[in-house]
Amino acid sequence: MKVVKFGGSSLATAAQFEKVLNIVVSDPARKFVVVSAPGKRFVQDIKVTDLLIECAEKTINGENNHELIEAVLERYRNIADELKLPIEFIQELHKDLLELLNRDITNKNRFLDAVKASGEDMNAKLVAKFFQSRGIDASYFSPKDAGLLVSDESGNAQVLPESYERLYTLRKIPGIIIFPGFFGYTKNGEVATFSRSGSDITGAILANGLKADLYENFTDVDAVYSVNPMIVHHPVEIRELTYREMRELSYAGFSVFHDEALIPAFRAGITVNVKNTNNPTAPGTKIVHKRDNTNGPVVGIASDKGFCSIYVSKYLMNREVGFGRKLLAILEEYGISYEHTPSGIDDISVILRQNQMDQYTEQDILERIKTELLADEVKIEHDLALIMLVGEEMKQNVGTAARATKALANAGVNIEMINQGSSEVSMMFGVKQASERKAVKAIYEEFFAVVPV
Amino acid sequence: MKVVKFGGSSLATAAQFEKVLNIVVSDPARKFVVVSAPGKRFVQDIKVTDLLIECAEKTINGENNHELIEAVLERYRNIADELKLPIEFIQELHKDLLELLNRDITNKNRFLDAVKASGEDMNAKLVAKFFQSRGIDASYFSPKDAGLLVSDESGNAQVLPESYERLYTLRKIPGIIIFPGFFGYTKNGEVATFSRSGSDITGAILANGLKADLYENFTDVDAVYSVNPMIVHHPVEIRELTYREMRELSYAGFSVFHDEALIPAFRAGITVNVKNTNNPTAPGTKIVHKRDNTNGPVVGIASDKGFCSIYVSKYLMNREVGFGRKLLAILEEYGISYEHTPSGIDDISVILRQNQMDQYTEQDILERIKTELLADEVKIEHDLALIMLVGEEMKQNVGTAARATKALANAGVNIEMINQGSSEVSMMFGVKQASERKAVKAIYEEFFAVVPV
Repeated sequence: MKVVKFGGSSLATAAQFEKVLNIVVSDPARKFVVVSAPGKRFVQDIKVTDLLIECAEKTINGENNHELIEAVLERYRNIADELKLPIEFIQELHKDLLELLNRDITNKNRFLDAVKASGEDMNAKLVAKFFQSRGIDASYFSPKDAGLLVSDESGNAQVLPESYERLYTLRKIPGIIIFPGFFGYTKNGEVATFSRSGSDITGAILANGLKADLYENFTDVDAVYSVNPMIVHHPVEIRELTYREMRELSYAGFSVFHDEALIPAFRAGITVNVKNTNNPTAPGTKIVHKRDNTNGPVVGIASDKGFCSIYVSKYLMNREVGFGRKLLAILEEYGISYEHTPSGIDDISVILRQNQMDQYTEQDILERIKTELLADEVKIEHDLALIMLVGEEMKQNVGTAARATKALANAGVNIEMINQGSSEVSMMFGVKQASERKAVKAIYEEFFAVVPV
Repeated sequence: MKVVKFGGSSLATAAQFEKVLNIVVSDPARKFVVVSAPGKRFVQDIKVTDLLIECAEKTINGENNHELIEAVLERYRNIADELKLPIEFIQELHKDLLELLNRDITNKNRFLDAVKASGEDMNAKLVAKFFQSRGIDASYFSPKDAGLLVSDESGNAQVLPESYERLYTLRKIPGIIIFPGFFGYTKNGEVATFSRSGSDITGAILANGLKADLYENFTDVDAVYSVNPMIVHHPVEIRELTYREMRELSYAGFSVFHDEALIPAFRAGITVNVKNTNNPTAPGTKIVHKRDNTNGPVVGIASDKGFCSIYVSKYLMNREVGFGRKLLAILEEYGISYEHTPSGIDDISVILRQNQMDQYTEQDILERIKTELLADEVKIEHDLALIMLVGEEMKQNVGTAARATKALANAGVNIEMINQGSSEVSMMFGVKQASERKAVKAIYEEFFAVVPV
């Protein structure tokens, strides 16, 4: 049995609804369908969720919300019309939405959450209606009835452990279940939404509770690429990626999934298959716990810009107990978080995202490190890019570092920093931002380029 | 003006005394001479300082100390006889030593310090006597009269800042000053010794206080080698080394100087010249603040065994505030210090010297990390060696990492860890202990081997 999730772009138009239906019915194992709210149809389009947020805010501020209500309904109406669903259905949605907007606004966050969540909820009802209209045994199921209980944190709700057992009982229900993503209910029966990518979270929770064999996550790309396609044209697609590899890739610019979205699936040992609604026969990318097939030591290359490095040296630093702690405490006072703190014998570097400091804060911090810690030298290097080579096979592979460093040397890229071995599945290089593209290309060519025989 | 220090092996026999005299008089700038106690004459020999420690302990315990007193005096007597110094001088030393051993033993540490220090003190007097016997204007000078004040920490005394100004006034004294190393006086007029390599410390303090042009440190090797001569035969000698480079080399098995010995010279910006008493015309190795001449990106390769790495991974670790701190707190509870904590996205490794943990402590620690921090995976890798490539030019040099990693790959050495960029002057590789020699040789050949044209 599979849990299938469709993102907003997969449900933005009637044509997309048709694709979704075909995908679901083509595999009898696809029994649980999680849906997002309708997304963008074209670049300048506005997502239904964003319309709803604006509508809720206007309502809270006592401003006129009629146009926004109309804009929201228009999206559903367009789809329903094209799919030839009865007009009464949209009238019902309209009635429900007005009722929702007339509720008590004393608790603004709770009100906002309920309005935001209605985008998914209405869409799930619409999908169910559509499936039924085509004679398919499908029904909408509310997270409330399913017992999807969450913590009372508006916009950042956490699933409560008892939900999983209740969700398991849904397996007994015949037919296809259409389930709205993005939200659950608190113990008091109030709507609370998840954080960003909330429908991915709902899918992962269902996959866990239902003990699904597979969690299919349909989006609008054929696969996760081995490198940023903005840097390398038509890069190799990744067939299988372990959870660890995905995490390492997503860190540096590869936003495959929102960080926490997959935790429930990860904990239950369930494979996630990222697939394309617009090309459903493509195999997509599987996120697995263990990978069998290998394609060389490196499966992906990620990179991200905008880092800086604060370098501190002090003769005999390594004899000074607590030096590192005191250094980090100064940064904490400014609310600055750091990525890595590689250390030498008498020196330590702190790598952080540089947008956390303006010029004055920076001067302040450097001055304080110099005077309070009696450092011999304190300096900052701006505009660094971190490049991450990711692959489970890396640790066992003699010569991976040699190949990567040679590729960089041949491309004339100076390596500011290497961090290898702290992670079992990645190797990190720091280079000047200006060399990022050149560096990524050189490494890609070394590990992925197909050499014509 | 130069401060010249002679180590124990440079003053172990009458023949060595002759060499010392020739070295000092050959350069009129050599005005301040710091001496150690007589060291070993052959491998199984016992240093005078060790004889004195045993003698002091026997005295404290009320045991018979006659043999040890005789053994100590025998060393000085042999030298004095060969140098044809008057017998009365040794009789005076004998009287002084007996007086010292008859002092109050209530404060054991203070008593021990006074007896230990007498080895250097008697030797400085002997050297002065010898110089005078050859018609040289030389005189013994006591640290007490010189105003070398130290903190009241037996065996680990720290120089008090006011000493430096007093020492500067010694410049006015005519002739050559012979100064015992290893100890100073507390404000109460008691002897307190420095830590290990105490004579090196005395020399560095004098060089600082006297604003010397150079601090010559005479020992029994021609130079600091670029690599351990037990691994590579007849390695290249290092001509110039910056203080930073020396620190990095001394960390991993290169015991050039005791860590803190050179701080006073370092702070005063004074160059230290390591030279060989047995081959004084050899240029030796200079430890400088800034190095002009370069001989490639790498000046030295150091390595050390006996490290282990505790690897901890947890999904979404980098979102968990304080994970690293909690991990290190567990180690601290066991009194374990660590060398590096390189981190990945969802994992962190702690590199430490493995002799700090027995099998049971290790099991305990791994178990606690697993259960208390809810880690997904905790494992330990034993028997690692750290290899350090050191050189000031490294940072500016494209391709140094490539050359090193390629050399290791060609030698079939798997790299467990690379740490580059945290230090400006070094690059660290972690390899399995069994591969240490092979790895060091491969890197040495890459960077130092003279290729016949």
